Amino acid sequence: MNIINNQKTTPQLSGSSIEEKRAELKDYFRNTWATYESLFSLINHDEAYYLRPEPLRHPLIFYFGHTATFYINKLILGKHITQRVNNKIEACCAVGVDEMSWDDLNSEHYDWPSIDEVREYRMQVFTLINQLIDTMALSLPIQQNSLAWLILMGCEHERIHIETSSVIMRMLPISSLTEPCNENKQWQSCPDFSSSPNNELLSVPEQVMILGKKSADKTFGWDNEYGELSVKVTQFNASKYLVSNQEYLGFIEAGGYQNATYWTSEGQQWLIFSKAEMPRFWRKNSGEYYQRNLLNEIPLPMNWPTEVNYLEAKAFCQWKSEQTQLNIALPTEAQWACVRENLVGDTCDWLQAPANINLAHYASSCPVDKFSAGEFFDVIGNVWQWSESAIDGYDGFKVHPIYDDFSTPTFDGKHNLIKGGSWLSTGNEAIKSARYAFRRHFTQHAGFRYVENFDGKIPTTPVNRYETDTEVCQQLDSHYGKTQLNQINYQQQISSSVLDNMTKYKVNAEKCLNVGCSVGRTAFELSSFFQHIDAIDFSARFIQYGVQLQQQQSVRYTSVISGDIVDFNEVSLAQLPLCIKSNNILFSQGDGCNLKVTFDQYDAVVIEHALEKSYQPKVLLTTVSKRLKIGGLLFVISDFQHSTKYTEKSNWLGGLKVNGENVSGFDELCQRLSNNFELLNEVPLTRVVKQNQCTYIVTEIKMSVWQRLSE
Amino acid sequence: MNIINNQKTTPQLSGSSIEEKRAELKDYFRNTWATYESLFSLINHDEAYYLRPEPLRHPLIFYFGHTATFYINKLILGKHITQRVNNKIEACCAVGVDEMSWDDLNSEHYDWPSIDEVREYRMQVFTLINQLIDTMALSLPIQQNSLAWLILMGCEHERIHIETSSVIMRMLPISSLTEPCNENKQWQSCPDFSSSPNNELLSVPEQVMILGKKSADKTFGWDNEYGELSVKVTQFNASKYLVSNQEYLGFIEAGGYQNATYWTSEGQQWLIFSKAEMPRFWRKNSGEYYQRNLLNEIPLPMNWPTEVNYLEAKAFCQWKSEQTQLNIALPTEAQWACVRENLVGDTCDWLQAPANINLAHYASSCPVDKFSAGEFFDVIGNVWQWSESAIDGYDGFKVHPIYDDFSTPTFDGKHNLIKGGSWLSTGNEAIKSARYAFRRHFTQHAGFRYVENFDGKIPTTPVNRYETDTEVCQQLDSHYGKTQLNQINYQQQISSSVLDNMTKYKVNAEKCLNVGCSVGRTAFELSSFFQHIDAIDFSARFIQYGVQLQQQQSVRYTSVISGDIVDFNEVSLAQLPLCIKSNNILFSQGDGCNLKVTFDQYDAVVIEHALEKSYQPKVLLTTVSKRLKIGGLLFVISDFQHSTKYTEKSNWLGGLKVNGENVSGFDELCQRLSNNFELLNEVPLTRVVKQNQCTYIVTEIKMSVWQRLSE
Repeated sequence: MNIINNQKTTPQLSGSSIEEKRAELKDYFRNTWATYESLFSLINHDEAYYLRPEPLRHPLIFYFGHTATFYINKLILGKHITQRVNNKIEACCAVGVDEMSWDDLNSEHYDWPSIDEVREYRMQVFTLINQLIDTMALSLPIQQNSLAWLILMGCEHERIHIETSSVIMRMLPISSLTEPCNENKQWQSCPDFSSSPNNELLSVPEQVMILGKKSADKTFGWDNEYGELSVKVTQFNASKYLVSNQEYLGFIEAGGYQNATYWTSEGQQWLIFSKAEMPRFWRKNSGEYYQRNLLNEIPLPMNWPTEVNYLEAKAFCQWKSEQTQLNIALPTEAQWACVRENLVGDTCDWLQAPANINLAHYASSCPVDKFSAGEFFDVIGNVWQWSESAIDGYDGFKVHPIYDDFSTPTFDGKHNLIKGGSWLSTGNEAIKSARYAFRRHFTQHAGFRYVENFDGKIPTTPVNRYETDTEVCQQLDSHYGKTQLNQINYQQQISSSVLDNMTKYKVNAEKCLNVGCSVGRTAFELSSFFQHIDAIDFSARFIQYGVQLQQQQSVRYTSVISGDIVDFNEVSLAQLPLCIKSNNILFSQGDGCNLKVTFDQYDAVVIEHALEKSYQPKVLLTTVSKRLKIGGLLFVISDFQHSTKYTEKSNWLGGLKVNGENVSGFDELCQRLSNNFELLNEVPLTRVVKQNQCTYIVTEIKMSVWQRLSE
Repeated sequence: MNIINNQKTTPQLSGSSIEEKRAELKDYFRNTWATYESLFSLINHDEAYYLRPEPLRHPLIFYFGHTATFYINKLILGKHITQRVNNKIEACCAVGVDEMSWDDLNSEHYDWPSIDEVREYRMQVFTLINQLIDTMALSLPIQQNSLAWLILMGCEHERIHIETSSVIMRMLPISSLTEPCNENKQWQSCPDFSSSPNNELLSVPEQVMILGKKSADKTFGWDNEYGELSVKVTQFNASKYLVSNQEYLGFIEAGGYQNATYWTSEGQQWLIFSKAEMPRFWRKNSGEYYQRNLLNEIPLPMNWPTEVNYLEAKAFCQWKSEQTQLNIALPTEAQWACVRENLVGDTCDWLQAPANINLAHYASSCPVDKFSAGEFFDVIGNVWQWSESAIDGYDGFKVHPIYDDFSTPTFDGKHNLIKGGSWLSTGNEAIKSARYAFRRHFTQHAGFRYVENFDGKIPTTPVNRYETDTEVCQQLDSHYGKTQLNQINYQQQISSSVLDNMTKYKVNAEKCLNVGCSVGRTAFELSSFFQHIDAIDFSARFIQYGVQLQQQQSVRYTSVISGDIVDFNEVSLAQLPLCIKSNNILFSQGDGCNLKVTFDQYDAVVIEHALEKSYQPKVLLTTVSKRLKIGGLLFVISDFQHSTKYTEKSNWLGGLKVNGENVSGFDELCQRLSNNFELLNEVPLTRVVKQNQCTYIVTEIKMSVWQRLSE
């Protein structure tokens, strides 16, 4: 059987027969495994396994062992097995798939196993997985927490590495690779190449794209593919063809690699590091260009798609913009999706792949005008298409617990999405919802289509990064996360006491000032009661999340489980138990010691842990208490635990000796308010801030309630 | 009436008539006040109030305002009054009574009030206190938390400053002082001086001295005077007389001030700073010595007691030892008390003072052979007597909440006790239980008696300092302090689970190893169950307190209330709820990673938060688990929250990715123990560590219980 040209498509999760599904999973596993081994069988001498043609990546021996190791590591993590198969190989071949960066090179030395050791290891793992598939409990549809899902994950993971390994092979000396002669030629490149058609821009109408895989989708997906993002895409133009080698050559011949103005600053740094003068798989010999494919080198095929990284593609677009006086850019993820609409169906629907994908046609690129879909060509396949969009989780993103670092480390604004798959994309990679991202300098079987944006701006959405600042994360978790130690949410305790007192003392609830609003929960809780709320905090680090939530965006943060291990959390207003108005809150970064005159005439002022964080707590107290209407209520929430981190000792509000005598914060507060305020009430509050999986900071304080007296 | 020669004695706290007691308190207050004013009336021109004859002390204007300010500050702190009398004076005259040190000079500038302002202020305060005494609630006996106690405290405080102010006056130019002519001469020095008798050593028999004032004592006392200390004093010799000027002159003429070998290193530093060549109140003029008294200067009175600081007295003793080849030293507090036994009764018992004390005879020293008691002279009075004992609280010491820095700042090993009182000691200062301490370089109407110790060592007891290291204090509080947040004491939780499991699994309870014993509570709790316990901790900072408690000593530590304000705590084994054996515990500083071979053959090993504090937790686990007998139980208590503060990341026991996969601490523990141990049980524990008045760190963990399997 021609294994590589008979790629199984990624299995459906549901089905009517358990045993048929078991057999299908087993077939898919074996087809994946065999394809991987077929690829590695192209290496014709052992030394080549240990070369490092790409200094940013491990040698191929790592990848040979890695996909099998992955199964074992995940099986152990999922507690499906308890014993390792081979400690040494599993330690060597686990980490460092993607060095991520040319700017953080790891020069560590590895003691690699022999090829025979890895072959034997692979055989042991192969046997083990076959047995597991035969004997595992299986129910349909396959759930994300099941062993079957984990097997699928192993398969899809191996399919990714078929592709990334093949990229490294394209960097080995050609002499290291031959297709074994005892088989039919399976890994042959496309024989057709000639000059390129002229590219042109085609119009794509305005439309709303709903991105993201549904949780009930019929196939396996990686965690970042789930969730939902609705994007209104305005009309734009997109190039009919992927950019061909010929079109890209124009950029090179115009001195594009020598002209820094076309390159982003990241691109310029990469040029200095890489000394690149042309795409990675081009060669120049006696004035003639050649292209290195997997197994051969051919005169530069002008009508094949050019293969570049994002930084090169972006520079090309800059040059193209200059040439055409148009706003040429790469497509965003949503723009790519609009173009993808020209193709009906998905892998599972097609008898014959309508594109150069899934190893269905060639083991290389092919001409850019070979596979059409509507007016466009290569809507999918041939080479991956770089996008302008840095990868991010969709709303509702949840980390898969068995592979918590598949996606989240890439949500850093430095990893851009590639879409559409290449000739070697199989399994999940080949389907419509596939969504992979790499560092922008990364080499892949990847090129690009360009677009023209009419309003000049590239319509990307900002990355919703996971906040990692410990202090901010703990605030977010305390305000919006699960309640802890059986205590009511702290901001709910505060706001319900504020409301009780406003009602009890019959104070009109028009305007409220929340000083020290932090990430905003108290303001949101109070918003249904007051007509207007000014919520201020000294630090924009906190305020920004109040604003983000107010804009109906979700907020993401990490929380420490233990040591380096973190949890990934997403919160949004919609999840909160209360019906919250939020358009009557004005969040501002502000200094309570120096309030603008417009912050005035409040019915209530809530000072929320602002005194102990202020550089001038006494001034803050005076400043904000003056902004109350006569009869208005002042709520003071403070632990009075001053520290020189925030406040010079001479400015402390108590907690020290004054003229030789101990003065507590509350004493000092009473002293300062007694002339103009009456103390109405003291309300006990308990605050819990989770530090990690097992540690909590509990604070027990009293909120004091004061009424402003007439002068 | 001659005010100064008619000193009231400090009032008794009990009595049969409230109104008589009220009158007595008022008399005592007024007598104190009048004596203070009489002393200040000796200053004959206003500029003298602002001179600073002693650069380590404030000018006299401070002291003139200070004793009145003290009443107001304490009345406000005690919430007996709410309004200050004079903000400015009370801010100026509150702090800096005793600069404490010639090595931390404060050169701050003060804007002193005028004398008339202070006089007016004193009059206002005088009126206020009189009114308070007239109207205050009074019950008998007077309790420490009453307003009457606070009034007494103000009186005794003023009496202290009669004496310290007079010391500063002795430093003013004589021309600044005259006794007002419109009164009887009250402040006259003793007219008798001639040559000195030869001193000699008299034997004092061995005896047990019980020091410390009982809480039910009949008079007011400062906090440091209460409690109990029982000291067995072995036989020693003491000098019959205080050291006279003549005896001290021998030291000077022998070049004592020029010979560093007689001086402690502190003494040598003081000599460099002070450039002293003789006692502070001596003058040398044309080869003749003179002595400055309060109002006059006289030829050096050879038979009066010499007046020096501790450092000078100590140097004299060194010289005297060299001269006599005896072990000459100053008396300890207990040795002084033995000599005091020669005098029967106390101030309240005497119709005529049997010593030069309480202003009963002179306003100066008098000859050292004038007042005898048994074989000795000047057992009390004439001048204070420096002791070898640094001040410390007795067992059971409790800070008085209204004056929390009267004593505790002096419990630093740098303040030595002076005993016996001087000619100007009145009120509490004059009674037997009086106990004052000053920095060793401090000038007072103070001299010394010397003793001979037969075994060569000076029998002082070490100062039981208040621990202030935050981490150690929190451990002490968590182990021995009040339980918090309604949780059972954490070490009791641990030990009762250990005992339950030992019983349940029928393991013999002979030998136990407690690794990470910290300040020792778990070991004490387990001590009644096991025959022997080895309790080890990596840090001697913690261990020392286990040892101290085991030796039946009390342990003192501070706990933060808020900011700089701390509480003072004392704990001892006797206070613990359980009947605790402790002589079967061996506390040792030890490294769990590198245990001596003798630490072996345990029935139980309790690892108590040692893994997360170890530099090599994996090695620690292996090392200690090997020391169990077959069938013995291993108790692992850890939050597995490693930090690079203690542990290099490569040594963490979980809490990070290992070969690319998350490994929790418990996973890693199971992995490492699974071959030789069976997991029997997991017990939930809750630890609460109080950080300050309102903040707690709560940790919820599971203790895992493992049984060692046969090989």
